[in-house]
Amino acid sequence: MLVSLVLILAEVVVEWPACSLPSPAGTHLAVLSLPSCGASNNYINTQRGTKSQLHTRNDQRCGDMAEFIQTLPSVWGWLVGDAPAARDALARFSWKSPIVVVKVIDSVLRGIAQVAFGNNPLSGLLILIGLFVGHVNSGLGALLCSLTAIFTAKVLYWQDDAVAAGHSNFNAVLIGTVTPAVYPIVFREAMPPAVWGYMMIAAVFTVCVMGGLGRIMEGHNIPALTLPFNIAVSTTFLCVKMAGYGTGTAAPTPDPGAQEDIDWGQVFRGTLLAAGHVWAVEDVACSCLVLLALFIFSPILALVSYVGATLGTLTGLVVSTAPYAAIYQGLWGYNGFLAAGSISFFMVPKLHILLMAAINAVFATFLHSALSPVFAAVSVPLVDHDAANGLPVFTFPFCLASVLMLAAAMASGPPSLRVSSPAFP
Amino acid sequence: MLVSLVLILAEVVVEWPACSLPSPAGTHLAVLSLPSCGASNNYINTQRGTKSQLHTRNDQRCGDMAEFIQTLPSVWGWLVGDAPAARDALARFSWKSPIVVVKVIDSVLRGIAQVAFGNNPLSGLLILIGLFVGHVNSGLGALLCSLTAIFTAKVLYWQDDAVAAGHSNFNAVLIGTVTPAVYPIVFREAMPPAVWGYMMIAAVFTVCVMGGLGRIMEGHNIPALTLPFNIAVSTTFLCVKMAGYGTGTAAPTPDPGAQEDIDWGQVFRGTLLAAGHVWAVEDVACSCLVLLALFIFSPILALVSYVGATLGTLTGLVVSTAPYAAIYQGLWGYNGFLAAGSISFFMVPKLHILLMAAINAVFATFLHSALSPVFAAVSVPLVDHDAANGLPVFTFPFCLASVLMLAAAMASGPPSLRVSSPAFP
Amino acid sequence: MLVSLVLILAEVVVEWPACSLPSPAGTHLAVLSLPSCGASNNYINTQRGTKSQLHTRNDQRCGDMAEFIQTLPSVWGWLVGDAPAARDALARFSWKSPIVVVKVIDSVLRGIAQVAFGNNPLSGLLILIGLFVGHVNSGLGALLCSLTAIFTAKVLYWQDDAVAAGHSNFNAVLIGTVTPAVYPIVFREAMPPAVWGYMMIAAVFTVCVMGGLGRIMEGHNIPALTLPFNIAVSTTFLCVKMAGYGTGTAAPTPDPGAQEDIDWGQVFRGTLLAAGHVWAVEDVACSCLVLLALFIFSPILALVSYVGATLGTLTGLVVSTAPYAAIYQGLWGYNGFLAAGSISFFMVPKLHILLMAAINAVFATFLHSALSPVFAAVSVPLVDHDAANGLPVFTFPFCLASVLMLAAAMASGPPSLRVSSPAFP
Repeated sequence: MLVSLVLILAEVVVEWPACSLPSPAGTHLAVLSLPSCGASNNYINTQRGTKSQLHTRNDQRCGDMAEFIQTLPSVWGWLVGDAPAARDALARFSWKSPIVVVKVIDSVLRGIAQVAFGNNPLSGLLILIGLFVGHVNSGLGALLCSLTAIFTAKVLYWQDDAVAAGHSNFNAVLIGTVTPAVYPIVFREAMPPAVWGYMMIAAVFTVCVMGGLGRIMEGHNIPALTLPFNIAVSTTFLCVKMAGYGTGTAAPTPDPGAQEDIDWGQVFRGTLLAAGHVWAVEDVACSCLVLLALFIFSPILALVSYVGATLGTLTGLVVSTAPYAAIYQGLWGYNGFLAAGSISFFMVPKLHILLMAAINAVFATFLHSALSPVFAAVSVPLVDHDAANGLPVFTFPFCLASVLMLAAAMASGPPSLRVSSPAFP
Repeated sequence: MLVSLVLILAEVVVEWPACSLPSPAGTHLAVLSLPSCGASNNYINTQRGTKSQLHTRNDQRCGDMAEFIQTLPSVWGWLVGDAPAARDALARFSWKSPIVVVKVIDSVLRGIAQVAFGNNPLSGLLILIGLFVGHVNSGLGALLCSLTAIFTAKVLYWQDDAVAAGHSNFNAVLIGTVTPAVYPIVFREAMPPAVWGYMMIAAVFTVCVMGGLGRIMEGHNIPALTLPFNIAVSTTFLCVKMAGYGTGTAAPTPDPGAQEDIDWGQVFRGTLLAAGHVWAVEDVACSCLVLLALFIFSPILALVSYVGATLGTLTGLVVSTAPYAAIYQGLWGYNGFLAAGSISFFMVPKLHILLMAAINAVFATFLHSALSPVFAAVSVPLVDHDAANGLPVFTFPFCLASVLMLAAAMASGPPSLRVSSPAFP
Repeated sequence: MLVSLVLILAEVVVEWPACSLPSPAGTHLAVLSLPSCGASNNYINTQRGTKSQLHTRNDQRCGDMAEFIQTLPSVWGWLVGDAPAARDALARFSWKSPIVVVKVIDSVLRGIAQVAFGNNPLSGLLILIGLFVGHVNSGLGALLCSLTAIFTAKVLYWQDDAVAAGHSNFNAVLIGTVTPAVYPIVFREAMPPAVWGYMMIAAVFTVCVMGGLGRIMEGHNIPALTLPFNIAVSTTFLCVKMAGYGTGTAAPTPDPGAQEDIDWGQVFRGTLLAAGHVWAVEDVACSCLVLLALFIFSPILALVSYVGATLGTLTGLVVSTAPYAAIYQGLWGYNGFLAAGSISFFMVPKLHILLMAAINAVFATFLHSALSPVFAAVSVPLVDHDAANGLPVFTFPFCLASVLMLAAAMASGPPSLRVSSPAFP
């Protein structure tokens, strides 16, 4: 108990790699470490060949890390990291037993946290509370689309461990949270009930696209990230527009103000709000819950992600013009938040990897700036000629930047091995 | 003879897997079954490793199926399925013998049918008749571009079996049929003779792009489908526009009518016309010939494709607005037609694969709706600001949806093995 | 000495494969040929498996070619081909020794030449002189961005041989030359100093994107070409626009003149200027230096590239309309120049490969014509509705066409083996 507390604190002051510390209580569980280490690596279903190759290089580090997690006293094993105790307990039950309700809840909660790379049901619960605090419809949407996605995945014979870890439904979670939040902005009217139907269809699409993209990209050992969400949500929004919704009268465009001074307090607030904007929720309480949730899963991930959000927001100040309302709202930080987090999650955190995480956050923000007019232009001819209310870029910038950077990070040789067990810390 | 007729009827009432039925006459030809089973799998040139892997898992099923085909009495072997007797007879002749004329005709006809996954010269002949019935220029274009493509493929050292099966020219067939049909709609003028030259250049491009894309995508065990056609035809249309064609005066845009009632008889007619729209021909007789042609090749394929067209048309009703003229013309069904067909062609038809075929038809139609304004927007700045006559989406929606779905279907494990011998039934 | 001179002259009259000529002086160096043959093949970091496979098929040819290069008398070994003597001499020094200055200069110069596939410091020096002659800012930009890129690559642990061959910085060279040349055209104002900062950030991006794309595409045995430059420069230009630059008053658009006659002298000048336009410099002296530089590296490459530029320019006459100012400026030739060069560089030059190089030059020019309006449309809603000053297509057409053609060329079997040692001649 004390040992693990001390270790957690040690992590906060960024003393990697803590996993090489001796963990005296670990011996009696060491026999479990290797299999579980492999089992938790299903974010992308690595090909057998690659995996075993990574194992031979990573065994020592991975063994130590997994050992440390396994040696957490039982209470912690249910709560922090990727909650191995909860996972293993649930894996013993079949999907046909009555315990399926608990399994589905666990999968839904893990899926909510997986959006920001957290694989922990408690993290998911905290974020779900945050969603309901920020925007009730977003919370409901997340639940509805998650259940749709899990059902689809089971019907299409997805593997149990992928479903249990929430990989089948984290894209659907985003469909459920982003659509109710973004719809009124794009279509300038309240969301009609029929759009809930479109959301469920989009959730089914995410499962199929995730299966397809995941398979194509695993050949290159790269995860599909939230690309399926981006593809499904863009398609759905354009379809909804084509179906005749959103012909309401345009709100008067706000007058572009004169060059104003930057309010640094508001900029700081923007970096914080960015965490919530990953789920398209703009609420300080929600953002704090998100950061707390990530901290439970992995303190390093939470710290790097927040630094990424800060970098993204500062870059946003450079590559946009006044008025800076969008920056104060956190809209320029969420791509950096995810971009930095993805690098630190999938790679062993070394100094040059952290540098790449920073470059990735800046690159994602540049792409955000560059793609915004492109996405806005797409929908202009449809409704009217006001580019301000075109399609948003969603998390396309994060996905495109991170796919390239992860590939680059993996290409740079032995010092930057891919993490075989992306777990606590 | 009777046995095979009974089997065909059994297929129509959808009793898979009929291929496990005993075929008593098959024993004396069983020695041929395995090689031909491998030989017919050249739609994508599967890598050796993958292929042998599939073989070991598929041998039983594949052996049975091939055995059944081989046991067809000789007349049927020349006509139905992938016409193995005709293929084997022609494969014995070199490309330098006088019989080359017959080989080229066989390849042209198979290429015409390959557009909808049919590999049968009789199917191709029926569809070619349909093309001439619907639109004379489309038929001539198909022949001209096919010959150009076959010549190019031979000059660039394509493998004989790929050329013989029509894989080198089915994209060129589409260039030949779609350009004459779509040109007057996009450019609002009769097609000038110079465009036939552009069509031949585009046909050369399709061969090269097919070679390149096919090689890239076979690494992921996914076919290139009609992507080469889509790339070549989009490029060519934009080039033709840049070369100064189509500056005729704009036709008056039809007034968007009030919310009209849906005419279900016309919707049914639309599902039927969709089959012809794969080749951009709008004619009921042509569509019937297409369905008959597919039925000869594979009753299951014809049925699933038609159900896909129906699903696409119904989805089109949801994601578009009145007036529904495009739906009655079958323009919303052809992507669904191809999308459903591609899944049923490349995968062993099981219940959840048929479900994926249905999802794919709906997804392709969603993409059709989403990409239409994007493609229309591209060409707007060129001529004038009337989005109605921009570039059409061709079969991009089908290609994008099907590539993802095929990958997803393959990812979902043993119950959905890729068909090793995509042939009759 | 005489032997090599004769051989060079023999090459000019296009007598491939000269590498099979006997080289009597080669015996005492033959022991070096195989390793160096592998070492020079790092343009794309071929996977071990594929490479050894190629070796077994290519050994004879490659051995002869490398033998011939190794047997060049010492002076020539420092100057022509890929300058093996200079490379080997420098490879002996560590990056931490004082000789690092020479190594960096060598890498910068090779990077400048690598843009057109030349791997020779003298070629780079000639082209750099050409850049300064044509446009001083382009020369300075090339140096600044190169140094940034090499520094980034070393920090991110790139392999020494890739950095030494200039693969880390040739994309950055283009950032440095193209931005100062294109900025005034797109933004209609002189380039403000702050844009130099954006150029350095873009140079950092190119290194990361090169690492990532290179790794993804090497799985298919295809080089990333200048795609990283294209991605980085498009992103940066759009960001600069979003940051509020370029709001100067629009120059009056030149009146589209009546159908003028083609001035064939000017067309010839355009084919020559195309060579300089690869680096966005429009100057006859610069173009001549470029061609001379490529001739030093490989006479075949210089010849094929120039023929590609001519084909591209002629195709440009067909797919564009009067006035033909852009053709006379060489803007329609540089994609053909690179497209033809890439095929002849990466593949063993046989007759059907040269045919593919020609098709590739035409295809790239078609794509140039097709993508121009698409790129122009992207930036229209931002500033004003004058499509003439939108984003240029950079070398996207060359990259897209060549990736597909290289894949196609590799798919067409044994007669078109990939060159294992792309060097002199």
